Amino acid sequence: MSKPEILYEVKAQRGPTLRCKGWRQETILRMLENNMENAEKPEELVIYGGIGKCARNWESYHAIVKSLKELEDDETLVVQSGMPVAIFKTHKLAPTVVMATTNIMKADWETFYDLQDKNLTMFAQYTAAPWEYIGTQGVIQGTFETLSAIAIKKFNNDLTGKIYLTAGAGGMGGNQSWAMKMHGGVAIVVDADEKIIKRRMQKNYMDKIVYSLDEAIAMAKEASAKKEPLAIGVVGNAADLFEEAYKKGFMPDIISEMCPCHDPISYIPSGYTAEEAEEFRKRDRKGYLEAARETMKRQLRAMNAYFHKGVEVFEYGTSIRKECRDAGMPEEEAMTIPGFVAEYIRPLFCEGRGPFRWTCISGDPEDLRKTDDLALEICKGDPLVERWIKLARKHLPIEALPARICYMGFGQRKRFALAVNELIKKGELSGPVAFSRDNLDSGSIVNPTFESENMKDGGDLISDWPYLNALLNCAGMCDLIAIQANYSMGEAVHTGVTMIADGTDEATFRLEACMTTDSGIGVVRHAQAGYEIARDVANGKGKLTNESI
Amino acid sequence: MSKPEILYEVKAQRGPTLRCKGWRQETILRMLENNMENAEKPEELVIYGGIGKCARNWESYHAIVKSLKELEDDETLVVQSGMPVAIFKTHKLAPTVVMATTNIMKADWETFYDLQDKNLTMFAQYTAAPWEYIGTQGVIQGTFETLSAIAIKKFNNDLTGKIYLTAGAGGMGGNQSWAMKMHGGVAIVVDADEKIIKRRMQKNYMDKIVYSLDEAIAMAKEASAKKEPLAIGVVGNAADLFEEAYKKGFMPDIISEMCPCHDPISYIPSGYTAEEAEEFRKRDRKGYLEAARETMKRQLRAMNAYFHKGVEVFEYGTSIRKECRDAGMPEEEAMTIPGFVAEYIRPLFCEGRGPFRWTCISGDPEDLRKTDDLALEICKGDPLVERWIKLARKHLPIEALPARICYMGFGQRKRFALAVNELIKKGELSGPVAFSRDNLDSGSIVNPTFESENMKDGGDLISDWPYLNALLNCAGMCDLIAIQANYSMGEAVHTGVTMIADGTDEATFRLEACMTTDSGIGVVRHAQAGYEIARDVANGKGKLTNESI
Ligand SMILES: NC(=O)c1ccc[n+]([C@@H]2O[C@H](COP(=O)([O-])OP(=O)(O)OC[C@H]3O[C@@H](n4cnc5c(N)ncnc54)[C@H](O)[C@@H]3O)[C@@H](O)[C@H]2O)c1
Ligand SMILES: NC(=O)c1ccc[n+]([C@@H]2O[C@H](COP(=O)([O-])OP(=O)(O)OC[C@H]3O[C@@H](n4cnc5c(N)ncnc54)[C@H](O)[C@@H]3O)[C@@H](O)[C@H]2O)c1
Repeated sequence: MSKPEILYEVKAQRGPTLRCKGWRQETILRMLENNMENAEKPEELVIYGGIGKCARNWESYHAIVKSLKELEDDETLVVQSGMPVAIFKTHKLAPTVVMATTNIMKADWETFYDLQDKNLTMFAQYTAAPWEYIGTQGVIQGTFETLSAIAIKKFNNDLTGKIYLTAGAGGMGGNQSWAMKMHGGVAIVVDADEKIIKRRMQKNYMDKIVYSLDEAIAMAKEASAKKEPLAIGVVGNAADLFEEAYKKGFMPDIISEMCPCHDPISYIPSGYTAEEAEEFRKRDRKGYLEAARETMKRQLRAMNAYFHKGVEVFEYGTSIRKECRDAGMPEEEAMTIPGFVAEYIRPLFCEGRGPFRWTCISGDPEDLRKTDDLALEICKGDPLVERWIKLARKHLPIEALPARICYMGFGQRKRFALAVNELIKKGELSGPVAFSRDNLDSGSIVNPTFESENMKDGGDLISDWPYLNALLNCAGMCDLIAIQANYSMGEAVHTGVTMIADGTDEATFRLEACMTTDSGIGVVRHAQAGYEIARDVANGKGKLTNESI
Repeated sequence: MSKPEILYEVKAQRGPTLRCKGWRQETILRMLENNMENAEKPEELVIYGGIGKCARNWESYHAIVKSLKELEDDETLVVQSGMPVAIFKTHKLAPTVVMATTNIMKADWETFYDLQDKNLTMFAQYTAAPWEYIGTQGVIQGTFETLSAIAIKKFNNDLTGKIYLTAGAGGMGGNQSWAMKMHGGVAIVVDADEKIIKRRMQKNYMDKIVYSLDEAIAMAKEASAKKEPLAIGVVGNAADLFEEAYKKGFMPDIISEMCPCHDPISYIPSGYTAEEAEEFRKRDRKGYLEAARETMKRQLRAMNAYFHKGVEVFEYGTSIRKECRDAGMPEEEAMTIPGFVAEYIRPLFCEGRGPFRWTCISGDPEDLRKTDDLALEICKGDPLVERWIKLARKHLPIEALPARICYMGFGQRKRFALAVNELIKKGELSGPVAFSRDNLDSGSIVNPTFESENMKDGGDLISDWPYLNALLNCAGMCDLIAIQANYSMGEAVHTGVTMIADGTDEATFRLEACMTTDSGIGVVRHAQAGYEIARDVANGKGKLTNESI
C-alpha cells in the first residue's frame, strides 16, 4: 500500500460542477472540504478545539472522498470514528452518511488516548467529526444570544451603554467583547496575559489595552455615557481586579468570565504574570494547583458578592463553580450564581431554538445575501432573528463557504428551509444549501454539567434523548446523521445532523419531516421535563408557530 | 386523571382482524402483547430478567397501545424508556417505532434506581423493552450453539455419548441439561440446592436426582456407553464436587458452570446447604462473602486443572474469572480458561450469525410449521440450522405466539425473510411474520466483559458499532429500532430491531435492505477487527452467501 497523500491545504469546491453522482453526495463532500478549509491544522486533519478531527487519518480521508464520489443515490456510507467502514444499499430517502464517533464504554481520557493510539477512534469535537464546522461565527452567536437573553430579562432588550465585566480573552473567551459590541455595549475583559490582549487587538476584537482597573473603568464609563460600543482589555488577574472593582464600588451591569477554570493547571494564580506562571507550573505542580485554586475561589467570591448586590452574574461554561467546590468551597457558596444554560439558554431550547446554521454550497456570497434576506422575511417579527441577521451580515466576515448561524426555533426552521428550497428550485440561488446545527441544540445533547444541568424533572443524566433525536432524524430523512460522545470523556452524548435543500421536490418532502423532528424532539424533551414554554410550543401555542407536535 | 387499568393477563390477539391502520402497526402491537403473554409478572409489566419491562407504567402501556392503534402508515411513534412521548410525521418507509431505553450518563445502579423512582427511566433487559421476548427458547439455543461450536471444534460435530459436567440449575442455568440432551449427550449438573433440582425434574429439564458424585458418574458412564441422552442433578457444592471428580480421575468431555458468581452474595460457600447459606448471609455478610469467594476460587482452580489436562473448559458468562481475580487470585491464573463468546460464539458472529428469531403474528402453529420447513429449505446444507430446526420443532413447546429462534447468518437471513414474504403474498401463511433478534448479535452489542471481550484489535470498549447498527437499520427501513443500555449499569450498549414481512412488495423492498444492514454491519465490525472469517464473508467468500458488503 502506498502512503496516503497529505494535503496541506484543502479548499471546498465552488460552482455548479458535480463530482459525485448527485447533489446530496456533492454537498456532503463540500461540507467536508469546507471543514478542512476552516481547519486549524488541516495537515493533521484537526479542524478545531484542540484535537477535533474530520477523519481518522489521511488514508481514511481519501477513502471518504472516494466513497462520496462513487456513492449511488440509494446507498448509505457508514463512518466509524472518522474511518469509512462500509457502503450499504438502503433507499433514496435514507441518509447519505451515518456516523458514530468517540463512543467508548466507561470512557476517560486515558482509555481514549489508548484506543486512539491503536487507531480505533478519534475525537469528535461537536461539529468537526460530522463536517459541520463553519468557523468562528458559532461561538460569537452563543455569547450574543446569552447577552440577548439577559437584555430581555433585565434591560428592556437593549444593551447599549451597558457594561460587561469579564475575564479571559483566549481562543473562545476572545469572542466575548465582539458579541457585546454587536449589542452596542461596552466590554471590560481582564486577562493576565498581555500578549493575548495584544493579539486580540490585531484582529479588532479589542479596541484598547490598559494596565490598571481605574483606567478601564474611566474609559468604560465614558463610552457608556456616549452610548458607544467599546472593548477594553485590562492586563491583570481576574481575582485581583474583580475584588478591586467591588471594593471601589464599581457596578457593571453584567459579569461573567472565561478563564480556563475547568483545567486549573492553566488558570493563572494571583501575583504571577503569564511567563512567571509558566515557570511556576513547571517547577512545582502541586504548589501551582494550590495557588491557582486559592485565586479561583477569590474570583468566585467576588462574583458572588456582586450577585448578592443584584448584578447579573453567571457561569459561562468554565466549571468555575464545580472546581471551587471540589477545592473545598462549601457547596452552597460555590453554587451561588447560575449556569448560563439553565438561566438563559434553556428558555430558547424550550422553543426549539439553538445554533442552527446553513452553508451555501455554491460558494457564492450572493446566495448568503439572499438567504439572509429570506431569513429576515420568514422570521419577521422575531426580534432575536431580526437583530442577529442584521448585525451578523454587517460585522462578520465570510470564512470559506458562505454560511450563517442563526438561533431559529421550532417551526421557523422548517418554513425557512422550505423557502430556501423554493428559491433554489426557481433558480434564484446558484447551488444547494446545507442546513446543520451545533450540538448545543434543544434536543440533541445530554451533558449533566452543561446543557442538561439542573433540568426541572431531575433528568440531567437521562441520555435517551440524543439517541431518539438521531433515530428520529434518520426516520425524518436527514442527509447525514451522527452519534457522538464529547466534552469531558464519558460525560456527554450528542448528535450531529445535516439536511440538504437542492431545489427538488424530494428535498421539500425530506425537509418537511426532518426540520420538524430535529427541533421538535427538543421541544418534546423540555415539555416532558415540565417547562411551560415547551408545553405551549408542543400544543401549538408557541410564539413562533401554531404547529403542534 | 383516572387511575390507569392494571391488566393481570394480556393475550396477543390472533387471527386476521386488524385493530390498527396497517399490518405493520398491528404486528408491533401484537409483539408487545406477546411480550406480556410471556411475562413473568404481567401486572407489573415485568417481562423477564428480574426487572426488564415493556412499558414505564400502566398509563404508558395504555398510551402505547392507543398510539399504535391510531398511528398512520407514514408516522413514527417515539418511546423514551417505556413512555410514548411523541408521534412525528416521517414517511412510509421509516420505522413505525423508534425507542431509547435505560441510557444514562455515568450510570451505576444507584443512579438508575434514583431516576427510576423519579419515573424517568426503566430497565430495558435485552428483548423486554423492544417487545421482542419470545419465552425460554432463546436461552436454550444460546447453550445449544455453544455446545455445537465445541462439537465442531473437538468432537467431530457429534456429542452423543459425551459428558458435560456443569453446575448451577437456576433460572438460566437450568436450561443447560436440556441443550445437552438435544445434542444427544449426558449432563451432570451440580447444584447446592436440592429444591431447585427437584423443581427442574418436574418440568423434565432433569431426569434423575442423586446425592453423591459416584452415583452421578456411574449413571453418566452408563448412558454414555449406551449413547442415551440423560440429565443428572447432583446435590452438592460445585467446588467440592469438581475437586472430588478431578481427584478421582473422572474425565468429562466438557466443563462449565452457571453458578451466580457475578453476585457473590448469592454464591453458596462450601459446607453450607441453601438454607444454611441463607441464615449465614443474614447473620454475617462480610464473613459470608469471604467464605463464598474462597469456595469460588477452589471451584475455578479445579476447572483450571481440568483445562490443563486438555478438557474443554470455558466460562459461560458468569464472571467467575473476574470475581476470582478481584478476590485476589493472580490475574494469569484467574484468566486461564476462555470466555465462551471469544472462544465459540465469535466465529459465528463473523458470519453474521446470532439469535435471530421470527414470530408468527397470526398465532397459527401451522405458520410456524411452514416457516420451519422453509428455513430447512433455504438453509439446506448448513448443519447448524438444519440440526437446530429439527430438534427445536421436536423438543420445544409453543409459548404464546408461535416463534422460532435460529442462529442464521449474513445472507441466510435475507433469503429466508424474502421467502417468508413470498409465502405470505401467496396466501400460504395466515398472517405477517415479525423478524427480530436478541441483543447478543453480531453487530448490535458492545460489552467489554462479555460479547466484545478480547476483540482481536483491542476495540472491546469502542461503542460506535451498536449506534451504527441502529442508524443503519433505520436507514435500512426496519420497522422498530431501539438503542439500549443494559447488563451491569453503564457497561453495555446494544440495539433491538424488528422487521416485518406482511406479503407486500414494500416489505420485499424493506427486508432486502434491513436484513442486509443488520447482520452486515456485524460482519464489517469483525472484519475491521481483523477476523479472517469475517473478511471472507465481507468479500463474498463466506460459506453461507456469495453476497459481498
Ligand atoms: N460557554 C461556552 O459555550 C463555552 C465555549 C467554549 C469554551 N468555554 C470555556 O471557556 C473557558 C476558556 O476557554 P478558551 O478556549 O478561551 O481558553 P484559553 O486557554 O484559550 O484562554 C484562557 C485565557 O484566560 C487567561 N487567564 C488564565 N487565568 C487567568 C486569571 N486568573 N485571570 C485572568 N486571566 C486569566 C489566559 O491568559 C488566557 O488568555 C474554558 O473553561 C472553556 O471550557 C465555554
Ligand atoms: N451465558 C449466558 O448467556 C448467560 C445468560 C444468563 C445468565 N448467565 C449467568 O449465569 C449465572 C446463573 O444465572 P441464573 O439465572 O441461572 O441464576 P440463579 O440465581 O437463578 O441460579 C443459580 C443456581 O446456582 C446454585 N448455586 C449457587 N452457588 C452454588 C455452588 N457454590 N455450588 C453449586 N450450586 C450453587 C443455586 O442453588 C441456584 O440454583 C449468572 O452468573 C448469570 O449472570 C449467563
